[in-house]
Amino acid sequence: MHSLRFTAESSSNGVVERDFTVGDVPGVLWSPASGADRAPLVLLGHGGGAHKRHPAVTGRARLLVTGCGFHVAAIDAPGHGDRPRTAYDEREIAELRRAQAAGEPEGPVVVRYNARLAELAVPEWRAALDALQGLPEIGADGPVGYFGIAMGTAIGVPLVAAEPRITAAVLGLMWPDALVETAKRITVPVEFGMQWDDERIPREAGLALFDAFASKEKTLHANAGKHFDFPRFEADGAARFLARHLGRAVTSPA
Amino acid sequence: MHSLRFTAESSSNGVVERDFTVGDVPGVLWSPASGADRAPLVLLGHGGGAHKRHPAVTGRARLLVTGCGFHVAAIDAPGHGDRPRTAYDEREIAELRRAQAAGEPEGPVVVRYNARLAELAVPEWRAALDALQGLPEIGADGPVGYFGIAMGTAIGVPLVAAEPRITAAVLGLMWPDALVETAKRITVPVEFGMQWDDERIPREAGLALFDAFASKEKTLHANAGKHFDFPRFEADGAARFLARHLGRAVTSPA
Repeated sequence: MHSLRFTAESSSNGVVERDFTVGDVPGVLWSPASGADRAPLVLLGHGGGAHKRHPAVTGRARLLVTGCGFHVAAIDAPGHGDRPRTAYDEREIAELRRAQAAGEPEGPVVVRYNARLAELAVPEWRAALDALQGLPEIGADGPVGYFGIAMGTAIGVPLVAAEPRITAAVLGLMWPDALVETAKRITVPVEFGMQWDDERIPREAGLALFDAFASKEKTLHANAGKHFDFPRFEADGAARFLARHLGRAVTSPA
Repeated sequence: MHSLRFTAESSSNGVVERDFTVGDVPGVLWSPASGADRAPLVLLGHGGGAHKRHPAVTGRARLLVTGCGFHVAAIDAPGHGDRPRTAYDEREIAELRRAQAAGEPEGPVVVRYNARLAELAVPEWRAALDALQGLPEIGADGPVGYFGIAMGTAIGVPLVAAEPRITAAVLGLMWPDALVETAKRITVPVEFGMQWDDERIPREAGLALFDAFASKEKTLHANAGKHFDFPRFEADGAARFLARHLGRAVTSPA
């Protein structure tokens, strides 16, 4: 087991932010500045082309720390953020850019590339979770949630299916092709976001992935608008969903 | 214009509850006990066979008053609560019971009966709104929302389409048959609830009604479970939706 090594620490507006590495994988852990009490942990998966400190990630992290008192962790996916791209990454990204420029569907490239990244990322997330649970303020038996949209769902579905420590997940905005069979093995509560007028992922494809989860408790949030119109208020809904299932009250209005 | 006549008043846990009549129609107005400041008004439509003080109605009313500081009003639909049933009501209710006992689909009876009730109820709601806006603590120019599920949607869709004073609506759990054309005229923000495994309303029917709204801002909340499993936490989501669109912060955790 790789141990967790902290490399930097800062604090602002009630949130302590610590950079860490587990093996070669860099991450960030956000925690409430107020106390050392044990609190649930939420793992944040970033989107394709983004990284552990993308504004969407840090915004969700702050919301979950200050609103729910959670610890929140993000790591860079392979080929993302501070991690080097391989020749394979470069080829797939070039192919995605080519398809986009040619007006061709990007689904086939994204599905294939993200499925490969998920094979690498799932064991990295599990090693990070092992290491994070070694911290006294998190502990080995506390509740763990996952929140990741788009590529964060391409990685999140196999992660949640493989990892019994994760007991609630917020997912969404991904093609079902590589994920449906794995989603059928997921039984923990799921909140799933999709865009009703998504120009990239057909409506039926989004509904099919939601339908696949075996979870007795699952909620679909479908909002009018295109792919990148995914509304910011869904982060607030996600915080409330995670608070409900990981056992914390939401203390700040949003 | 009928004026509003208060017939009883009580107060508990921060909520003032006043019975009223507008013409022959009895209603209840719930308001914050704390103050006389003007606040938005939410109209609550009850479900079929229920009434203005059904527990689902009073629960939502308390949540909206104490959580958002709104005024909240409910009136009895024709043939419901304190209002007499006509021979027509009795015939339709008997036909519904017969279909249920025979294991036949209840959709055709509910759709037809609720559409008739909506023709009567829409002008009653509009008269009640006229009268409620005559109260100084509500006023003629404040924001107005509507929240009604099932029969509350059968009445709510034509009401929201007809009534420009209503600027946000929470709806759901109804067959689309009598409502789709009217829903296409609705452009205000809508939050729409459906049950993913509804044994009464087919999934495609629920999705079709959501799809029909012309609103640029609309959100579908679809939850796993059967018709009557509609989850209580959706009332909290509805409060946050109404607070977002009627312009109030939500001040209590839920």
